[in-house]
Amino acid sequence: MTERSSFPERASIRTDLAVEARQFLTQQGHPVPGVTIEEEESQYAKVSWVKITSPAGAQAMGKPPGNYITIESRYLRQANRVVQEEIGQILARELEKLANLAPEATVLVVGLGNWHATPDALGPRVIDELMVTRHIAQYTPEELSEGLRTVCALAPGVLGITGIETGEIVKGIVQNVRPDLIIAIDSLAARSVDRVCTTIQLADNGINPGSGVGNKRLGITKETMGVPVIAIGVPTVVHASNIAYDVIETLLGQMKGELDLGIMGRLGEADKRQLIRAVLGSEMGDLHVTPKEIDTLILNLSRVLAGALNVALHPAVKPEDMYRYLH
Amino acid sequence: MTERSSFPERASIRTDLAVEARQFLTQQGHPVPGVTIEEEESQYAKVSWVKITSPAGAQAMGKPPGNYITIESRYLRQANRVVQEEIGQILARELEKLANLAPEATVLVVGLGNWHATPDALGPRVIDELMVTRHIAQYTPEELSEGLRTVCALAPGVLGITGIETGEIVKGIVQNVRPDLIIAIDSLAARSVDRVCTTIQLADNGINPGSGVGNKRLGITKETMGVPVIAIGVPTVVHASNIAYDVIETLLGQMKGELDLGIMGRLGEADKRQLIRAVLGSEMGDLHVTPKEIDTLILNLSRVLAGALNVALHPAVKPEDMYRYLH
Amino acid sequence: MTERSSFPERASIRTDLAVEARQFLTQQGHPVPGVTIEEEESQYAKVSWVKITSPAGAQAMGKPPGNYITIESRYLRQANRVVQEEIGQILARELEKLANLAPEATVLVVGLGNWHATPDALGPRVIDELMVTRHIAQYTPEELSEGLRTVCALAPGVLGITGIETGEIVKGIVQNVRPDLIIAIDSLAARSVDRVCTTIQLADNGINPGSGVGNKRLGITKETMGVPVIAIGVPTVVHASNIAYDVIETLLGQMKGELDLGIMGRLGEADKRQLIRAVLGSEMGDLHVTPKEIDTLILNLSRVLAGALNVALHPAVKPEDMYRYLH
Amino acid sequence: MTERSSFPERASIRTDLAVEARQFLTQQGHPVPGVTIEEEESQYAKVSWVKITSPAGAQAMGKPPGNYITIESRYLRQANRVVQEEIGQILARELEKLANLAPEATVLVVGLGNWHATPDALGPRVIDELMVTRHIAQYTPEELSEGLRTVCALAPGVLGITGIETGEIVKGIVQNVRPDLIIAIDSLAARSVDRVCTTIQLADNGINPGSGVGNKRLGITKETMGVPVIAIGVPTVVHASNIAYDVIETLLGQMKGELDLGIMGRLGEADKRQLIRAVLGSEMGDLHVTPKEIDTLILNLSRVLAGALNVALHPAVKPEDMYRYLH
Repeated sequence: MTERSSFPERASIRTDLAVEARQFLTQQGHPVPGVTIEEEESQYAKVSWVKITSPAGAQAMGKPPGNYITIESRYLRQANRVVQEEIGQILARELEKLANLAPEATVLVVGLGNWHATPDALGPRVIDELMVTRHIAQYTPEELSEGLRTVCALAPGVLGITGIETGEIVKGIVQNVRPDLIIAIDSLAARSVDRVCTTIQLADNGINPGSGVGNKRLGITKETMGVPVIAIGVPTVVHASNIAYDVIETLLGQMKGELDLGIMGRLGEADKRQLIRAVLGSEMGDLHVTPKEIDTLILNLSRVLAGALNVALHPAVKPEDMYRYLH
Repeated sequence: MTERSSFPERASIRTDLAVEARQFLTQQGHPVPGVTIEEEESQYAKVSWVKITSPAGAQAMGKPPGNYITIESRYLRQANRVVQEEIGQILARELEKLANLAPEATVLVVGLGNWHATPDALGPRVIDELMVTRHIAQYTPEELSEGLRTVCALAPGVLGITGIETGEIVKGIVQNVRPDLIIAIDSLAARSVDRVCTTIQLADNGINPGSGVGNKRLGITKETMGVPVIAIGVPTVVHASNIAYDVIETLLGQMKGELDLGIMGRLGEADKRQLIRAVLGSEMGDLHVTPKEIDTLILNLSRVLAGALNVALHPAVKPEDMYRYLH
Repeated sequence: MTERSSFPERASIRTDLAVEARQFLTQQGHPVPGVTIEEEESQYAKVSWVKITSPAGAQAMGKPPGNYITIESRYLRQANRVVQEEIGQILARELEKLANLAPEATVLVVGLGNWHATPDALGPRVIDELMVTRHIAQYTPEELSEGLRTVCALAPGVLGITGIETGEIVKGIVQNVRPDLIIAIDSLAARSVDRVCTTIQLADNGINPGSGVGNKRLGITKETMGVPVIAIGVPTVVHASNIAYDVIETLLGQMKGELDLGIMGRLGEADKRQLIRAVLGSEMGDLHVTPKEIDTLILNLSRVLAGALNVALHPAVKPEDMYRYLH
Repeated sequence: MTERSSFPERASIRTDLAVEARQFLTQQGHPVPGVTIEEEESQYAKVSWVKITSPAGAQAMGKPPGNYITIESRYLRQANRVVQEEIGQILARELEKLANLAPEATVLVVGLGNWHATPDALGPRVIDELMVTRHIAQYTPEELSEGLRTVCALAPGVLGITGIETGEIVKGIVQNVRPDLIIAIDSLAARSVDRVCTTIQLADNGINPGSGVGNKRLGITKETMGVPVIAIGVPTVVHASNIAYDVIETLLGQMKGELDLGIMGRLGEADKRQLIRAVLGSEMGDLHVTPKEIDTLILNLSRVLAGALNVALHPAVKPEDMYRYLH
């Protein structure tokens, strides 16, 4: 899990999801210039396209300019194969449009995160399930590999285990493998518990490390890698402080109009944050939480993502065969 | 994880820990008759002895009469071997006192929970690490097994995987093995995030299923099993609703005296719960959350518990060798 | 893995498979009275029905009287979904015939073996994948559960981890659950490397512990449990000594007629065994070996077995949906 | 597991161990010029130093020139902590001498093999246990990190999962990290079952892919990487054909002098190999086998290796603390 969202000052609540950032800003009454949004609903899912087109929009959203596609379905938390296939096929379709690959393109899929921490294991698990073809393609006559693109994959592990920045590892691979596109899979932090394991975000501007401690880190972006980078993220954790924040917001909303708020009128962002610290304590203030069913959720999601990648990357894999070539 | 605490009406917030229930009641201003508490602190840990002696105390606490010993240390969340040994040795000492075993006693250790759901895997992992001796003891001359008690163990799995109530499985074993004591290890739900993986509770009245849905379930108690049952529990999850509840309490406390509260004065338990439902949504209302480092926390805790059991049950295993005979 | 085949003296080579025992005896020129065999081949599999009907047959085969059904397919070692479905459907059909269950029957499935030793983990993995219904059936109106039998399951673990004989644990469950049939899944030892993970054996006489050290152990049979027991076994290991034995047999066969054998003529069973000991050394003499791809083989086999059980036990699960309800 | 030993024609039996190759050649009566060997025994272990100094020696041994150090102990198969510490300390000592590192040297440890195939998981498991420091060292004042070298690590995964040659991945890391030494950990194939999980080999000439299919592969050597490469290997599997070969050798040896051998006198290497094929069958001819306890063996070995690396690489880690800093 890469901690990469660093909100500008006035938006103190952390999220990796563009759709949440926009929602939050709108609720706060902030105008959001240079940000457009479109939405579409199907039986089990809602798809949103957020486009950040100006520096002002990027500043307001706390995210770099680019296209952010969000697929949401609260049914993803159930073990429902029909839903999983619908979501997987939407993901495949959107990824294919965003990637816009030439038939002979080479793709490197990078699974970020830590095998040994369940909520952070989504990336490595997708790599394990994914169909790779590069080692076969290199030695195969062209006519035999029709309909299969050249795909390779890596789960580099996390800094605490390797001692090497993930960006450094990926850069080395890119120099040797020379892919036309990098797809990076990552676990994200959401602002709201509703989002956890119910939302998949695609973005065409890569993985951008934050500006704090993270600013020494090498992002995985077109700038650093020299090739386009699509990031696919799923929120698997939420800051405990966000739960607290939402409670306060709702409480205040509920009380408005009922009484002359006195102190309440003066309760600004800073007060709310102090309140949260008081409730959660200093140690717990940075606690990320995850649902207790996380093992099953990660297992099912990794199959949806790997299946969608197989469909999106290989013309020969039909949407209805999305689960057929998983490992 | 056995959902077993069913609070009486006025105490709507769920916890499996006696020490938390008492704290909560005290904060609420409820008198707690028939409940005594003693405490002691050492360098890294605080030990509390809560004794529920009357039906009124049991009613107020939402827990059956008995002895509840709590070992707390926020250092348990760090991977600190020195702390782990201190806690393990305290646990061994308290368990030994509570069990008060004859030298030739047979002990059955039951690891409740689900191997495949990390926050619920503590029980099964302890069983995997534990030293068992019953199969050796049966064929060993007495002089060779001096200092070793007869210990056997089982991780029966959860209802969703077996289709059999855990209590039914354990009862069958007890009928055949005829132990003198059952020790049941379980993951618990805490009220407060601070408690998660920082508290170990021992109780001498077994595992008591709640009165709701759970009342069809067979507890693991002296009444159902015919032998004493000591329960060892560690909170590994917290209800998201509890985080919300604490936020509201703190907020109201903070505002008192600042203004004529209007609606606030009328905000009773029921209102608070409705507010929580509004914030968390119907689906999330029952969400249990767990820290994202749960894999490492469970691994370390299972070693502390198994080590402490080895020391407490076998006179031949010295406290300083607590980690020596783990699998 | 239960070590249960104890060959009578003259047949010194160990196997858990009836079909192998018969093959071995026939090759040795031993008459095999009271043993019948029938065979049938389909595209990917061969099915054999061995029936041991007399004490003499049992003595010769080193196995108790009963029906032994063997499904063989060397394609099982490949990750071929079409083959896996064919084998699974044959297994379901044979199991259904052997079990001959009333619609309202209750079945207990027991997964023998050790989760933490891959070649011995087949039983526990099948339990994890299996659909259990007993906990639902107990509270469901009859009309809703039509087509589903009452199935429950347990993976009791091995003696070294529990300190309790598996038979004792199962007996306790049986006393409380009162099933009409027990199905026990186990990893077996084969005589020949060809058999490893390519053969599935069903037998209607349960799990019979050997007569040596094992004779203190409680079998899982109709005699000990009071209900019929079907054993389903898959060889996952082979004794290194068996590989050696086969080499010697083939070598001698090859040389016959070529020369006056001198010592070779006098090389009896005892000499061969001594030779094997000389080659393998005392430590390695008892070495069980397994293919290095055992992780993948066990994973695939556990799905074939669990899928076949779902089809065989529940009329509502159609053969073509064999993989649909796996966990 | 890298299949890297390609024996020259007359030595048809495969091994990755120099000490076995030499033993085999000596038994065959082949002279082994340009190869020296020294040995030393301690209570639980035997250490051998094989030096291949000439092209003729390399040709005869089927291995490139270099230093091969072998630590053997059949006690390694037992779960004996005292033995494990002795072996670990010998390994640390030999590795330190072979590496001869400057205090400020940077070391890259590469764990070859496949996490999901137990006998091939040794390399990745060592990486998981190992203490890495590079990410700390980069931001630490020199005086605080005294006694710790700069260590980083990677388990790149296998070709079938990544689609990228391991050598390509490592080369990319080397270009970015610029280590002074690479240490590559790998599972090996042994000739003899006695060697499996009882032998640790160090070699100072890296990982050399074979000349067959493997010759398209990029080795991990000083030539390909530009920095010295030490390989640490442990045999975890054995070819089934090698077991067969040994049986035949022993059988023939036993019969010599007893009779005029006839065909036996004419039984050359080619005949023996044909015989082995006849016994093992075409499919099984390439079967690698591993002991059924392989899960436990790999677990214990990974701790011995990671502990020894911590001691050898960091002056601040004392031999008696070998197990102290494992993850």
